[in-house]
Amino acid sequence: MKKFIDDDFLLSTACARRLYHEAAAAEPLFDYHCHLNPRDIAEDKRFDDLSELWLSGDHYKWRAMRANGVDEAFITGGAEPVEKFFAWAGTVPRLVGNPLYHWTHLELRRCFGFDEPLCAENAKSVWEAANAALKTLPVSALFKKFNVFAVGTTDDPADDLRFHKMAGAAPTKVVPSFRPDRALGIEKDDFIEYLALLGGASGVNIGSFDDFLASLSASVERFDRAGCMASDHDIPAVFFEEPHSWVTWERGLAAVFDRRLSGRMPPEREVDSFKSFVLRFLSGEYRERGWAMQLHIGAMRSVNARMAAALGANSGYDAMGDDRVVSKLALLLGAIDGRGGLPKTILYGLNPKDMYPLSVLAGSFQGGLAGKIQLGSAWWFLDSRDGMEAQLKTLANTGLLSRFVGMTTDSRSFLSYPRHEYFRRILCNMIGAWAEEGEIPSDFAFLSGLVRDVSFGNALTYFCRGERRGA
Amino acid sequence: MKKFIDDDFLLSTACARRLYHEAAAAEPLFDYHCHLNPRDIAEDKRFDDLSELWLSGDHYKWRAMRANGVDEAFITGGAEPVEKFFAWAGTVPRLVGNPLYHWTHLELRRCFGFDEPLCAENAKSVWEAANAALKTLPVSALFKKFNVFAVGTTDDPADDLRFHKMAGAAPTKVVPSFRPDRALGIEKDDFIEYLALLGGASGVNIGSFDDFLASLSASVERFDRAGCMASDHDIPAVFFEEPHSWVTWERGLAAVFDRRLSGRMPPEREVDSFKSFVLRFLSGEYRERGWAMQLHIGAMRSVNARMAAALGANSGYDAMGDDRVVSKLALLLGAIDGRGGLPKTILYGLNPKDMYPLSVLAGSFQGGLAGKIQLGSAWWFLDSRDGMEAQLKTLANTGLLSRFVGMTTDSRSFLSYPRHEYFRRILCNMIGAWAEEGEIPSDFAFLSGLVRDVSFGNALTYFCRGERRGA
Amino acid sequence: MKKFIDDDFLLSTACARRLYHEAAAAEPLFDYHCHLNPRDIAEDKRFDDLSELWLSGDHYKWRAMRANGVDEAFITGGAEPVEKFFAWAGTVPRLVGNPLYHWTHLELRRCFGFDEPLCAENAKSVWEAANAALKTLPVSALFKKFNVFAVGTTDDPADDLRFHKMAGAAPTKVVPSFRPDRALGIEKDDFIEYLALLGGASGVNIGSFDDFLASLSASVERFDRAGCMASDHDIPAVFFEEPHSWVTWERGLAAVFDRRLSGRMPPEREVDSFKSFVLRFLSGEYRERGWAMQLHIGAMRSVNARMAAALGANSGYDAMGDDRVVSKLALLLGAIDGRGGLPKTILYGLNPKDMYPLSVLAGSFQGGLAGKIQLGSAWWFLDSRDGMEAQLKTLANTGLLSRFVGMTTDSRSFLSYPRHEYFRRILCNMIGAWAEEGEIPSDFAFLSGLVRDVSFGNALTYFCRGERRGA
Repeated sequence: MKKFIDDDFLLSTACARRLYHEAAAAEPLFDYHCHLNPRDIAEDKRFDDLSELWLSGDHYKWRAMRANGVDEAFITGGAEPVEKFFAWAGTVPRLVGNPLYHWTHLELRRCFGFDEPLCAENAKSVWEAANAALKTLPVSALFKKFNVFAVGTTDDPADDLRFHKMAGAAPTKVVPSFRPDRALGIEKDDFIEYLALLGGASGVNIGSFDDFLASLSASVERFDRAGCMASDHDIPAVFFEEPHSWVTWERGLAAVFDRRLSGRMPPEREVDSFKSFVLRFLSGEYRERGWAMQLHIGAMRSVNARMAAALGANSGYDAMGDDRVVSKLALLLGAIDGRGGLPKTILYGLNPKDMYPLSVLAGSFQGGLAGKIQLGSAWWFLDSRDGMEAQLKTLANTGLLSRFVGMTTDSRSFLSYPRHEYFRRILCNMIGAWAEEGEIPSDFAFLSGLVRDVSFGNALTYFCRGERRGA
Repeated sequence: MKKFIDDDFLLSTACARRLYHEAAAAEPLFDYHCHLNPRDIAEDKRFDDLSELWLSGDHYKWRAMRANGVDEAFITGGAEPVEKFFAWAGTVPRLVGNPLYHWTHLELRRCFGFDEPLCAENAKSVWEAANAALKTLPVSALFKKFNVFAVGTTDDPADDLRFHKMAGAAPTKVVPSFRPDRALGIEKDDFIEYLALLGGASGVNIGSFDDFLASLSASVERFDRAGCMASDHDIPAVFFEEPHSWVTWERGLAAVFDRRLSGRMPPEREVDSFKSFVLRFLSGEYRERGWAMQLHIGAMRSVNARMAAALGANSGYDAMGDDRVVSKLALLLGAIDGRGGLPKTILYGLNPKDMYPLSVLAGSFQGGLAGKIQLGSAWWFLDSRDGMEAQLKTLANTGLLSRFVGMTTDSRSFLSYPRHEYFRRILCNMIGAWAEEGEIPSDFAFLSGLVRDVSFGNALTYFCRGERRGA
Repeated sequence: MKKFIDDDFLLSTACARRLYHEAAAAEPLFDYHCHLNPRDIAEDKRFDDLSELWLSGDHYKWRAMRANGVDEAFITGGAEPVEKFFAWAGTVPRLVGNPLYHWTHLELRRCFGFDEPLCAENAKSVWEAANAALKTLPVSALFKKFNVFAVGTTDDPADDLRFHKMAGAAPTKVVPSFRPDRALGIEKDDFIEYLALLGGASGVNIGSFDDFLASLSASVERFDRAGCMASDHDIPAVFFEEPHSWVTWERGLAAVFDRRLSGRMPPEREVDSFKSFVLRFLSGEYRERGWAMQLHIGAMRSVNARMAAALGANSGYDAMGDDRVVSKLALLLGAIDGRGGLPKTILYGLNPKDMYPLSVLAGSFQGGLAGKIQLGSAWWFLDSRDGMEAQLKTLANTGLLSRFVGMTTDSRSFLSYPRHEYFRRILCNMIGAWAEEGEIPSDFAFLSGLVRDVSFGNALTYFCRGERRGA
């Protein structure tokens, strides 16, 4: 019987162990998509306590506590940080089988050297030891501890990127990612308000569709100068509305835009037409600059209306949509492709049922650059051992695993980097098992190259223009 | 090579074996949802032969025989019981890989001590031995043999529950479950006829929507006094139709109801609006009484119209629907939640594609009671080793396995209790493998508590008001 | 550590090894569905080089090369055959985890005795050795080498079947399969043009719906005389449109057909009504002749419009649809069943989400012949180890694995026969593991019979009328 999370955690074969320890473990981390706060990085923040770092924004943990019957006061309510930590510690033993169980214990080990299972009984000693350790673990120290090569934050086009311009204390490359969800949200009540922000950031007074597009272009350019390598789009439901005429499409939308400025909300077809056009327009901007376009597909936000109203967005009340995705996405990608080619594109599915179809669809738009269209890593509700294995196998079966850009945390926490370790162990375990069983050659140089590529090298090649390594 | 179904059946590791034999095996059975006939229990029925007990109502077996080319005469037709048994015995060897293969042999072992693989050659000796044994195995003896603590039958609101009121011969707690499908079936031809039954059971002459709701309330109360702990709803396709105005919703439906009484069938939107309102109304009744609300989602009934017309419902001609479920279910749960909170709720998905989305959606409505919203156990076409493992893993990855209320047979047969054993072995095998691999701590006291909870303790806590154990 | 693709490739247990080597390996191949060119068979073609045989038509490989960033010139473009082969060889090491990786190496071993992993470095020697070997490996030699008992090609009803009538050089039974996609394509621009071809093949001038149906009947009869055992339909999206009146359905469609002849395209409902009627009509023809009807469901063709326009159909730009399938398919099968019974039917799903629902739906239309309605083997994007295991387990859990007609290549290449070996190893591995674990009896005679049935015997029974073996 193996000890709980020992050195060979998740590594079932000799080949897997060697691949992880000799090839994967030492590779730097390329965390190309996350939700870290750029200000915390720029100011090299120190955290007061483990509650602030772990519990103040992590709605994954909030959901687990609610499912365990913890009172909301100890989750998002007025309880003291230490009380919230105790509520969490008491929930952890109930999480056997959940990825939070592994993440929590990996984080306690890697950051604080604490290797007992967390529970109500030892919560006090963990709380004290971790808080003491945090005094000498500002953001830069965490980046260094985890060998974080690059971080891509998630930023609105109207953001002034001031914190990205400040030199952080660590050598980690910190770049913005362009997330224009609000710019596509013509159907939202705050769209007009948003236009003022967007225009302000570009020094433009947006009075027309032309102004709007110019302002987006200017933002893209501004992000590009700040080192941006990727955009990101939240696509709750895939949209595509083909124009009656490609020639007059822009002109028609200019009129829609004008009406929206004067307060008239467009009907659904016009909303979809607007989104389709703007995404297609932006895709061209991305392509020209060598950016990757990330599409996160299928998250239904705030389905518990009562609680979302009380606590706001990102409070743990989101769901996994189950709409169809292929038909419209095929048309959308085709429309973008027909305007000069797709940019590098990463398709993330939130629902397991979408993984195979997305991977196959990606394969129909490949060409030119190796691994140009990617099946994104297992995400959010799928960011578990089973979810990662399913994503890796889906990609391997229907595409090129060897070209995969690999893991990203998608996290709001500076403690989440052990998820890369978790991913690499799972990757090495899968490939090691194949080698042990004679399904692939047991050529260590060959397999370690593959493992290193998926751990780090492919992401470096994919995202960093001018730093591309041989295909 | 292990012997066929030996003591360590399905248990691959030492930890799994210890967990099953020392923790799971001795726990009582809480069979909270099944389709047993209350009269058979009340009258402590003795069965004439194995054909009556096994084949007279089990459409799972009928489907298997049809797929094996057996003539319908030997399935539901006029052949003698012994001939039907021989047709079944001849089919069994063809069922390798099907859960019926394991269930059949577990039932033969546990009930009759017969441990050879059933086939045409030994059918005669099985038939004779089993029939002899059945003479001393009335329902109460079967309950005792399998340590059945409680049974929740499935009953119409118009049922007078007379058999539940009779004291059975066994100490097993036998309670009704409230299944008001016909009350929601305003679009069905026999709705008016049903209202007479429903009104009759409550001593009300249903002449208005008010009467109807009062009659439902009275039935709920009557069931509650008979010990009912749960309701159950068959939801072939998820419905939700939001009212134009929440204030006038009930008044609008009163008019729809009146028109239906006068013979005018409502259009689809009004049907969905009616169902939405009535389910929301009933949810309040359930919540007040601490009942659990079970939603069985996605069964398409009687898709083979020709055979269903000949043999009636529940004859083995049902299918697994593949409609979308999340969007409307999120709205439906939200609407119920907004009226005073959800009752305890169990969401059962019939299609594997629905398991992840349902589990995630459940997580968005948790709060208060530990494990309040449950992902239901693998059901019907998914009630297999693979289906159970998928359900357990889905729940573990996206929720709290440790709070799961566990297995229920959903069966029409008094011989089906070994399915609990089957489930527990699968559960122990999964958890044992985790411990052996160091994925969870190998703390036997901790893991055996978890296994006991999921085998029995959680169901007891969840369903039995006043018997709740510490969260 | 096992050697790469050794004799016990994919066989993890002693029982699996014995089942494969002693029971499965020697069975003949019944390749009931493929896309081989009948002319190549009739003329006993010799191939110039490995590029022609491997790369000239295999869009699976084209997709892999595109995903690896290979220039289109080396895929479908003007590069020399040897250059294309080198581009492929350089891509192969990047395919670890993809079924192409196993297929490629199995084919190199079984056909040419080459057992190193193919790569750029050894491409030259493979090219020379394989091309030399091909001089003495005409089609008949390949058939003999792989013990191919029967091959079902895929042919249009207007085909004159001249190549099927020529005696091939091998004893392999080569029969056409009836694929009337163009006959159902009333909405296609070339429908009228096609009617001329269809009529020509039957000596009829199609001037009415009656003529059309008569012409289809005549084609079916002509195919039947040529030994046809099966039809095949491409069903990108399941259609069914119920007629207002069953009595006047044909008359109504006659008018639709007349309008189409005069150039008026029918609206979508009439298109679906036409397809529903014609498929139902054809099903009767199939049933009368004992044919199997194959429905390949869910392929979206040529989704990359730009590349498909440049390269034509079947160029590697297809996708996996994700529409719902059950509701309409249940109605379609019910409508066919109601007209005199379903023919033998094989339902192939392309999307993993459809496997369980299709298998369950099949179970609702069983009866008469053992295994009459089949869940088709894992197909196209699912034709991988994982895909095959999922199909086998889905079928085992919800139907009768023992009645499965097994593998077919669906291939365009004469080198694809090792896919049967691949399938049989996977099958034996699964059954062997069950026996080792005591989940099924370790009765070798029993299990080897099962393995032989699924490898060959069931297909022989199912497809060859008059050659049926005992059920």
